[in-house]
Amino acid sequence: MRPADLGEFGLIARLTQGIETRPDVLMGVGDDAALLDPGQGALLVVTCDAQVEGRHFIRGIASPAEIGHKALAVNLSDIAAMGAEPLWALVSLLIPPTLDVATLDGIYAGMRALARRFSVAIVGGNVSGTDGPLVIDVTLIGRTQRGRELRRAGAQPGDRLFVTGTLGATAAGVLALVTAPGTGAAIPQATLERARRAMVAPEPRVAAGRALAETGTVTAMVDISDGLTADLGHLCAASGVGAVVEVAAVPVDPDAVRIAGAYKREPLSLALAGGEDYQLLFAAHPDVTAEVQAAVERVNETARDIGFLTEAGTGMRLRLPDGAERPLEPRGWDHLRASGEDEKAGR
Amino acid sequence: MRPADLGEFGLIARLTQGIETRPDVLMGVGDDAALLDPGQGALLVVTCDAQVEGRHFIRGIASPAEIGHKALAVNLSDIAAMGAEPLWALVSLLIPPTLDVATLDGIYAGMRALARRFSVAIVGGNVSGTDGPLVIDVTLIGRTQRGRELRRAGAQPGDRLFVTGTLGATAAGVLALVTAPGTGAAIPQATLERARRAMVAPEPRVAAGRALAETGTVTAMVDISDGLTADLGHLCAASGVGAVVEVAAVPVDPDAVRIAGAYKREPLSLALAGGEDYQLLFAAHPDVTAEVQAAVERVNETARDIGFLTEAGTGMRLRLPDGAERPLEPRGWDHLRASGEDEKAGR
Repeated sequence: MRPADLGEFGLIARLTQGIETRPDVLMGVGDDAALLDPGQGALLVVTCDAQVEGRHFIRGIASPAEIGHKALAVNLSDIAAMGAEPLWALVSLLIPPTLDVATLDGIYAGMRALARRFSVAIVGGNVSGTDGPLVIDVTLIGRTQRGRELRRAGAQPGDRLFVTGTLGATAAGVLALVTAPGTGAAIPQATLERARRAMVAPEPRVAAGRALAETGTVTAMVDISDGLTADLGHLCAASGVGAVVEVAAVPVDPDAVRIAGAYKREPLSLALAGGEDYQLLFAAHPDVTAEVQAAVERVNETARDIGFLTEAGTGMRLRLPDGAERPLEPRGWDHLRASGEDEKAGR
Repeated sequence: MRPADLGEFGLIARLTQGIETRPDVLMGVGDDAALLDPGQGALLVVTCDAQVEGRHFIRGIASPAEIGHKALAVNLSDIAAMGAEPLWALVSLLIPPTLDVATLDGIYAGMRALARRFSVAIVGGNVSGTDGPLVIDVTLIGRTQRGRELRRAGAQPGDRLFVTGTLGATAAGVLALVTAPGTGAAIPQATLERARRAMVAPEPRVAAGRALAETGTVTAMVDISDGLTADLGHLCAASGVGAVVEVAAVPVDPDAVRIAGAYKREPLSLALAGGEDYQLLFAAHPDVTAEVQAAVERVNETARDIGFLTEAGTGMRLRLPDGAERPLEPRGWDHLRASGEDEKAGR
């Protein structure tokens, strides 16, 4: 049996079944980050994510600085999803022998610039040679106030569902620059460049995550790395709820709309299943809708109410403008398969 | 310029020059692990190390369980070198598409068995596909009492120098099983197997590290991953001291002696420059020699007095039985070069 037969989540479940734990592990495998109790005061939040050349980035489409930025950004996004403050990073590099040092300089410059913006210290790491692709594997440690941590679990039926920012720009960038470059109708250069930036240099929503945690009213949160539908599936599974997403409320990125049009694709499918948006998806009681949206706006972000959570067993559904509903399949990116599932999802 | 032109340490120095820090980073890049202050109580100790197929392990020589064991063991050794208690691990896997899941099961079984022995919880990680070699990249977080942390810096001229266990068995295993298998004179099977185990399933000296930290009298410590001479070089550089190593006192592993004999090699060169011994090298004032040795013996390990530290600027020297001295070159394994420097060192 090959790992891809199990899929990313099947493999993780198999390898970590009954995994040994300790009393100071509040949450281990299975959320955006682990929650650890160092004994006094705050809780630690720990995550790691690797960027592999040819799978997560393509040199030429992404500059070295953008590659470094993204390697840290995807981890910052996981810390943001816990409502935590990022503190310390370790960087493990796997370096092919032919790689120029100037490329590594650029990668580090991009990573360090982003670290500086979020007051993150790079405190260690590892370098090793490899005969395979260049890999940048980052571990990030953050901190959150005890009782303020946000998990995927905790959402209740009746809670409203929110998403920050817009969705689909990364998937549009992948479509226009990687999957089928140049085959769509003419796309304005500025649109292409914004979609490229969404893909290669995502902005982690750290301030929004912390602002939401500080409200004390958010019941569950996840970052959108695998795609809105897939990550909503994670939140629903962890919280034991179903969900209804209102099609008309999904904040499809304007550039995704333009690029989808050029490729005669449904923009909504890019927003629902594209992945790597690195926005935050969260739930809160309907009474606090204005409060959570105001908290996000205070840090110059937006949060859109896109639906609500339902009783367990009702699944995930998409509500069309005419009130009709159709099932929403929790598909998204699988890191063990050669390409994403976005082509199939949302249909 | 290629990374190998700079070497592992040159590259790290270049990438992390003037690296951004935070007030809660007590020590960042440049020791066995980072030392972090989470705000109250104990200090955190954080390290990461990757095992790359074909460079750090060879399937067939190492079983899957041994590969998993070693991936965690090398990190436990770094935590041991700080005198700290290991707590939480994250495991990042890069998986080639053709790898059988049973191999991953075995790797995890070996890693989990070692984690259990040291009460370490595997709290998260990442899986990604790769078109390159299998990689197991582990981040390990430990804890130490404030004021009890042991660094590479801190040793004083006049301190005695100690090493736990024996040295050279891994280098002998590499020689007999990887570099030149079958070309030496006949080697007893039990000798070969012990050398193989030293190479593929090293035992991290966690209990000895903690016992030494608890004495409060050790002035500096490092684990021997790059080789005795190279890691002594790290300790001397960080502490600003020189060193004299007494040849007659170096605890050369008996299996290394036998294998070196079969290959007509100098056993001492395997012990001085072989690397991957994962023993602890530490310094303490001459007055506490009996105390530190007793502390190590209480956890069923041994510590040998192998020399002493000298004033800065005197370099590292090897003292022969007749009292003559020769320079000791700080050479050892470089993770960016295709093969180790052990062939050249110690001559």
